[in-house]
Amino acid sequence: MDAETVVQTETLTGEAEYSEDVTLKIRKMRTVDLIHRKRDGDELSPEEIRFVVDGYTRGDIPDYQAAAFLMSTYFSGMSDREVSALTEAFITSGSTLDLSSIPGTKVDKHSTGGVGDKTSLIAAPIAAAAGVVVPMISGRALGHTGGTLDKLEAIPGFRTDLSTDEFRAQVERLKLAFIGQTAEIAPADGKFYALRDATATVESIPLIASSIMSKKIAVGLDALVLDVKVGAGAFMKKQVEARRLAQMMVGIGRRLDKRVQALITDMSQPLGYAVGNALEIMEVSQTLQNAGPADLTRLSLELAGRMIFLGKVTKTLEEAREVAQARLLDGSGYRKFKEVIAAQGGNPKVLDQFELLPNATGAQEITTSRGGYVSGIDAELIGQASSMIGAGRNTKEDQIDPAVGVILEVKVGQKIEPGSILCRLYYTGEEHLEEAAELVEDAFRISQQPVDERDLILEVVS
Amino acid sequence: MDAETVVQTETLTGEAEYSEDVTLKIRKMRTVDLIHRKRDGDELSPEEIRFVVDGYTRGDIPDYQAAAFLMSTYFSGMSDREVSALTEAFITSGSTLDLSSIPGTKVDKHSTGGVGDKTSLIAAPIAAAAGVVVPMISGRALGHTGGTLDKLEAIPGFRTDLSTDEFRAQVERLKLAFIGQTAEIAPADGKFYALRDATATVESIPLIASSIMSKKIAVGLDALVLDVKVGAGAFMKKQVEARRLAQMMVGIGRRLDKRVQALITDMSQPLGYAVGNALEIMEVSQTLQNAGPADLTRLSLELAGRMIFLGKVTKTLEEAREVAQARLLDGSGYRKFKEVIAAQGGNPKVLDQFELLPNATGAQEITTSRGGYVSGIDAELIGQASSMIGAGRNTKEDQIDPAVGVILEVKVGQKIEPGSILCRLYYTGEEHLEEAAELVEDAFRISQQPVDERDLILEVVS
Repeated sequence: MDAETVVQTETLTGEAEYSEDVTLKIRKMRTVDLIHRKRDGDELSPEEIRFVVDGYTRGDIPDYQAAAFLMSTYFSGMSDREVSALTEAFITSGSTLDLSSIPGTKVDKHSTGGVGDKTSLIAAPIAAAAGVVVPMISGRALGHTGGTLDKLEAIPGFRTDLSTDEFRAQVERLKLAFIGQTAEIAPADGKFYALRDATATVESIPLIASSIMSKKIAVGLDALVLDVKVGAGAFMKKQVEARRLAQMMVGIGRRLDKRVQALITDMSQPLGYAVGNALEIMEVSQTLQNAGPADLTRLSLELAGRMIFLGKVTKTLEEAREVAQARLLDGSGYRKFKEVIAAQGGNPKVLDQFELLPNATGAQEITTSRGGYVSGIDAELIGQASSMIGAGRNTKEDQIDPAVGVILEVKVGQKIEPGSILCRLYYTGEEHLEEAAELVEDAFRISQQPVDERDLILEVVS
Repeated sequence: MDAETVVQTETLTGEAEYSEDVTLKIRKMRTVDLIHRKRDGDELSPEEIRFVVDGYTRGDIPDYQAAAFLMSTYFSGMSDREVSALTEAFITSGSTLDLSSIPGTKVDKHSTGGVGDKTSLIAAPIAAAAGVVVPMISGRALGHTGGTLDKLEAIPGFRTDLSTDEFRAQVERLKLAFIGQTAEIAPADGKFYALRDATATVESIPLIASSIMSKKIAVGLDALVLDVKVGAGAFMKKQVEARRLAQMMVGIGRRLDKRVQALITDMSQPLGYAVGNALEIMEVSQTLQNAGPADLTRLSLELAGRMIFLGKVTKTLEEAREVAQARLLDGSGYRKFKEVIAAQGGNPKVLDQFELLPNATGAQEITTSRGGYVSGIDAELIGQASSMIGAGRNTKEDQIDPAVGVILEVKVGQKIEPGSILCRLYYTGEEHLEEAAELVEDAFRISQQPVDERDLILEVVS
């Protein structure tokens, strides 16, 4: 650890580093004891959690002990104090981005990942247009869910690999910049994540919560709006799990003195109509011009409103919602996004002239043989189909085809006739096309009875 | 694996080896999937269990995945089919001792470990004198419990490191020989045990059961009598846990075609009066001459009787008990032990002339200030005190002092007067003596009311 990080450590925990003369033998003995207590459901102290994280990151604790610790955490869970200590230990394992020279409250928004979820690209420009400072760190697609960085990179020339200085300068000038995760931010989380992936301990709520929160807090945020997705197309399949994750992340924020609010939102059907990188940029453009799908517009405005509220632009959430609505209607969110695209090397004209975006070479219509009401559109299957024809990746090394994807023609609740088009698959090659078409067909459920609309925003945790 | 082991594999499971062209990548992917399913409580197939054991033993599966597998097993448990497959996989990981050239049924006895538990040295000679073939593989002391090998080695000259050929020849000639575990027997168990020790997964009933049973079955036994200790002085503190362990081991025996019976016996107070290696050899000698403590005699005879019954010397257990009693009373068990001592290089006269055994240089009396009835003698504290003055070891590297230990002067239920001697500490040096004396004093509970005698044999699982 370098000197700067040690200072950061003291700021957060008020504790000194462990003395270097603690022998490996004592460390090992103690590690077994900590695993034992975690296994038996005891609460570990912040110092003990930090001992495990630092020890593993430095290589003093072997990976088999870290694996046993992770699996016992999977089963025993963690208290709020433990998961906050874990988050802090991840944060202080690397360098943090110092944005304190930039005036204003720094607010980010994070989604746990969905299908057709392009709300970041709508809410962030609206919030920035309203005066919130938004240093946005985004991720890439994996599996059936999309990633904000991949969507942005569908814009020809758009650079997501800004240097820290470029990022800071742009955030100061435009109040909004987009970059990806860097290796310097929370490296312990990266090391633990790789181990979780190999040891079937990914699906642990405290481990997910600390992984997300450490990466967000390490970039110098003051506040964070979380969108925790629940349903077939999301990582969390059940609302009770999503609620626990949301509560835990909000609790971490409270303990680490960050204002955090979480929405729990429905991901049983894709958000909006477009799934696929360039296709989603088009829908973002329409939505920022107030001509987008109702569900996408509603959720993006709610997220932007909460960013504006947490960013202290307004005194109440109700006022913040009005500001968000106004920044959408007056086109300032749309203009902000264009400025940011230009600043990061992209061509802002793509938002008006969609032919400047990568375009698919073929489209296949999926029709229904039966009439009735659309009662379900399995977001996971739509996401898988889109990924299969090139919009996503199965491994981190896979290349993405920005042009391809799916555009829905109907949403849940809509009445359809026999022969109606359900959606279109946009492709550039025919590989996996038939397979993808079958998945997409399977995704639609048709009912003879009218279907009640499902709430989009299910719960708020704050 | 060598050709012999493969043959053994086919005998036990009827399956061929995995083809060598299975790539490491596929193995790793599959291992995560198996950990995931074990974590979620699914039953793994015998092939899948074997895949994990073989993969880890060969080094194809990394230790962090094996650690995650062990911790998920700790929490999810194992079915009878799974734990039997685990036991088989441990057995076939190494070489097995082929005793088939020796006529007769081979029967061993195993205790999960207690304080003052010298029943092996009484039951085995009685069973051998009755005609049962007893190839006895024993362990060493660790922590507060004693080990049969250490007790035998208190006899000057006694060799426990017989070669396989010497062991086989002695078993054939005398029907009884004692050796320790060898590295060739169930090496996978050894590798997993070391990992369990470092990952807080020792206390898992299926992992304990498979570890014990694999080592026993690998030495070519036909039948096994288990003594599962329960109480303060034992590894299992609760009868329900001891029962689950006993049932699981008996179930493994049934599936692998071995006759196994288990006694669940009380270890709330030490067995007999003597705790410490040479002191216990003296008590063994007395007991084999029918002048030993009632509890030790009773349990040893019951164990010997079950060995004789499983060894098919008699048709019924009742007859077997009578044979055991007769072999005690006619002194043939005593003579058998002397023969075995002589055969393994020891001086059999030690059983008559205790001064030939290592002797302590000092003795400290522990007396009571209050009269009443002895209501409890904490076996764990007595074992710790004895170990502390040199009779046991805390790490595998510690040297043992064969002369030292504790001799109880009272047992639970006995009436005592103020000033009565509770026990004597026998020592050769004064280091830790006061500390040990305090532990021993704490071990005794005195009540004003008469105390009901606790059953020694609590349950039989067969």
